[in-house]
Amino acid sequence: MGINPQDKKALSDALARRLPAYYRHVCIMLAEGKQTITSSELAKKVGNTSAQVRQDFFTCGGVENYHPDTLKDWLSGLLGIKKEHHMVVIGAGNLGRAIISFKDFNTDGFFIDAVFDNNLMLDGMQICGIPILPATSLEDYLSANKVDIVVITTPASVAEEILEKSVKCGVKGIWNFAPVDLRSNENIEVQNVHLSDSLLTLSFRMNEKNNWKE
Amino acid sequence: MGINPQDKKALSDALARRLPAYYRHVCIMLAEGKQTITSSELAKKVGNTSAQVRQDFFTCGGVENYHPDTLKDWLSGLLGIKKEHHMVVIGAGNLGRAIISFKDFNTDGFFIDAVFDNNLMLDGMQICGIPILPATSLEDYLSANKVDIVVITTPASVAEEILEKSVKCGVKGIWNFAPVDLRSNENIEVQNVHLSDSLLTLSFRMNEKNNWKE
Repeated sequence: MGINPQDKKALSDALARRLPAYYRHVCIMLAEGKQTITSSELAKKVGNTSAQVRQDFFTCGGVENYHPDTLKDWLSGLLGIKKEHHMVVIGAGNLGRAIISFKDFNTDGFFIDAVFDNNLMLDGMQICGIPILPATSLEDYLSANKVDIVVITTPASVAEEILEKSVKCGVKGIWNFAPVDLRSNENIEVQNVHLSDSLLTLSFRMNEKNNWKE
Repeated sequence: MGINPQDKKALSDALARRLPAYYRHVCIMLAEGKQTITSSELAKKVGNTSAQVRQDFFTCGGVENYHPDTLKDWLSGLLGIKKEHHMVVIGAGNLGRAIISFKDFNTDGFFIDAVFDNNLMLDGMQICGIPILPATSLEDYLSANKVDIVVITTPASVAEEILEKSVKCGVKGIWNFAPVDLRSNENIEVQNVHLSDSLLTLSFRMNEKNNWKE
């Protein structure tokens, strides 16, 4: 069960964005002690239709049944959560600290092993028990340690350089918060997060609602 | 020009998410001194097709021409950027601080006026010049001041209560980072940001690519 490896067409970005929400809500319903989940319940939670939920699950290879345990297990497999992911964070500023202090990650197998910063005053200090290392040692660290995902919270100017070093050292994923669009390529997957985009989407929706009332 | 107020069907969430990316890239191209922008250039930047760009612009009422200035002006109007938005942040932790220290907002007319925290030790202190006020004074503040958007960076347990107080005091938008899905209603628009969803989307894409190679 799972995505047919023969089907080399990448699943749509919209679907790739919906899967984590399905997983999140299945976990919540499981924690609430629900014994069964219907596609319409799940659809309501994520704000789409039950037909869409069933289509999405079918597109991803199909799930045997809608028991919460089965669904969680199946979605975990799809999302790669069953594997351990080792991560490092570049930038020990407010956003880097915020990401490190999220508690959810570890339970899903995402471990932050080190933080890098170009402020040498921080060298040897820790954030939530994670050591801060000098930015100049990043390449040596990536070469010597298994790192799956590099999290970029630096200014835009150095993001591309960090991407290049990461590819060179065999890193497979970039979670980018720098205000620049980095591109995925055959060696590495990139997710760009533009926090202010969601603020503008909110502003658009507020504006849209206001226009209707006029 | 703009969305036809007669058409009361809300534009799709996917389109509402693409508009800020169009705006961001038009601003970048304008800053780079580009004199004209084609729909295919813009499509390439945001990672979709030129047909999709033209369809999106048509759905939103259409734009007169593709000069960067015209496009920026038109998208600004759609996104409500031409209006001032006054915001307060609830929670002076790492994420609250990260949001306050973003410099982009002010240039788009989004102003953070105050931060609220339940740690009384922080009362009277400032973050980047923004005063920290006691959480107990939130409702009084919202009643006495014009606040358009409340930014929630608290634990999930208090997010719903903050939403209710915001609605009661006439706030029109919630930008929610608490790990819970708050719902928009006729009085207020909500954008929920689940940072870990984008990490899981990344992990999904890495897993998908890995499966193809097997």
